Amino acid sequence: MAHACRRYADRDDSTGKAVPVSGRTARRRVLRVTLPRDGAAGEAASQTARADLLAGEEPLGIRVDGEALSMTMRTPGDDVELAAGFLVSEAIVRSREEIAEIRLCDGTTCGHADHTEAELGNIADVRLAPGVAVTPGARRTFMTTSACGVCGKTSIEDICVLPRSPLSADQTRFAPAMLASLPDRLREAQKVFSSTGGLHAAGLFDAAGSLLAVREDVGRHNAVDKIVGWALLNDKLPLAGCALLVSGRASFELVQKAVLAGIPLLAAVSAPSSLAADLAAEAGLTLVGFLRGPSMNVYAGADRLAL
Amino acid sequence: MAHACRRYADRDDSTGKAVPVSGRTARRRVLRVTLPRDGAAGEAASQTARADLLAGEEPLGIRVDGEALSMTMRTPGDDVELAAGFLVSEAIVRSREEIAEIRLCDGTTCGHADHTEAELGNIADVRLAPGVAVTPGARRTFMTTSACGVCGKTSIEDICVLPRSPLSADQTRFAPAMLASLPDRLREAQKVFSSTGGLHAAGLFDAAGSLLAVREDVGRHNAVDKIVGWALLNDKLPLAGCALLVSGRASFELVQKAVLAGIPLLAAVSAPSSLAADLAAEAGLTLVGFLRGPSMNVYAGADRLAL
Repeated sequence: MAHACRRYADRDDSTGKAVPVSGRTARRRVLRVTLPRDGAAGEAASQTARADLLAGEEPLGIRVDGEALSMTMRTPGDDVELAAGFLVSEAIVRSREEIAEIRLCDGTTCGHADHTEAELGNIADVRLAPGVAVTPGARRTFMTTSACGVCGKTSIEDICVLPRSPLSADQTRFAPAMLASLPDRLREAQKVFSSTGGLHAAGLFDAAGSLLAVREDVGRHNAVDKIVGWALLNDKLPLAGCALLVSGRASFELVQKAVLAGIPLLAAVSAPSSLAADLAAEAGLTLVGFLRGPSMNVYAGADRLAL
Repeated sequence: MAHACRRYADRDDSTGKAVPVSGRTARRRVLRVTLPRDGAAGEAASQTARADLLAGEEPLGIRVDGEALSMTMRTPGDDVELAAGFLVSEAIVRSREEIAEIRLCDGTTCGHADHTEAELGNIADVRLAPGVAVTPGARRTFMTTSACGVCGKTSIEDICVLPRSPLSADQTRFAPAMLASLPDRLREAQKVFSSTGGLHAAGLFDAAGSLLAVREDVGRHNAVDKIVGWALLNDKLPLAGCALLVSGRASFELVQKAVLAGIPLLAAVSAPSSLAADLAAEAGLTLVGFLRGPSMNVYAGADRLAL
């Protein structure tokens, strides 16, 4: 089997010619199969071949000061923001000044002339500012060099990265009616979801409900990292007074990203996990789940809701 | 802020006493907020405090021959299967004989007496059979020791693990009507989802539509690894002639897991990504998406559908 990780060219169905790939979405041939209605016993399933728009998914390698740090499967686009946000979420940087440069490898800087098409644009090169370093303690991957290689003790604790400043100082109040309006506004702001059905979204709002930024990705965590990276690169961290809405569920990891970005309220359209609720309570984050229609569940920090 | 990664004890709301945690689910206090109906201008939002059942989420460290290999956030339960399936998905093992032992660390074997409650049961210790080893080339984390530390070239290609045997040899045919019946049957088989709304599920079926195994997790990839690990531990690999159904979307990673387990058909309730469709086509996997009601989209390997 050949490697599948090259950047596939779209093909125009009518001419068969390759067309440029945007990366965010990709057109693929699909066979739509529909069963006969009940009672139409002798009828066969109908088949229609057509072109379908899928959410783009490609690997992004993040390299810091020449060393590989992480690999994530993401939807291409906003990759510099994704790399920047990832560094915040891993507690490696907390301000724009700590990053000297982020650029996508175009094959001219690394000294290798034999890059495949797939690799170009799929590696983010980060140079940290002088004096800033990736310390093992700040990384989840620390486990591979854990102090206790036998029992992994340090590892389990190291997945909890501590926030830089307490969220409890953020006295912002959020109106339930404003929160209830956010899911519709996030969906409206999504550019790709309606065409592919395959992307998660994260939206950042202020306390009045104004949309500050929206990002999409096949991975919910990447969509949040892109938001946080956008904030870092625009000198907006910490995101005091803001609400972050994610499509789908709220995991421990998403709570941690919100806490590290200084966001006081995280809302999810679907359910949180137990650890998400626990970490939110400990970190002073307001966690809202099942934000649908006129109602919502508040799992932590209910004092920030203007009730 | 204290570390949040300990195993939280549930509390009985009526007595305030801690009650045992099952791990799969956890009870938390939640404030249910409901907005007044339209037109009831002066009315305030109603609030009800109650107990809510959340999907359990805790870290599982996987250690192979004494060395940390991976850390995943998962729903406790079927952890030995999860560790075994992870080893298959990372192309480290392909049969039960290659694993000498998997056991959850109970604090008595590693020589450390000071384990916190959180660590007990959250580390899976794997001993491989003599002659079996974790080769860097078989691991996605290989990137950290990539041959080319500068451009990450090897890294991008290494995310594609090759299958051990070609799926194209699997001539099984699947009836569309049988496939259309699977989502309802998966939902019926789920034990936890209906109570928490927060768990993904993976179900393994034979070509006649009989349910062989179902597993749940906060992570879709973990649910699939649990299925694959169950198969490995019961000497059922490769899973020729089987269909795997996942709730939610189909990513590149899920396609890769199915291919490595020898499963000829992967179906998802929601959309696949572009790379999922591409890898499925290259590997000879039948990929079905948007499996809802009487219809479905076939993105690759349509010849396995009995049309």
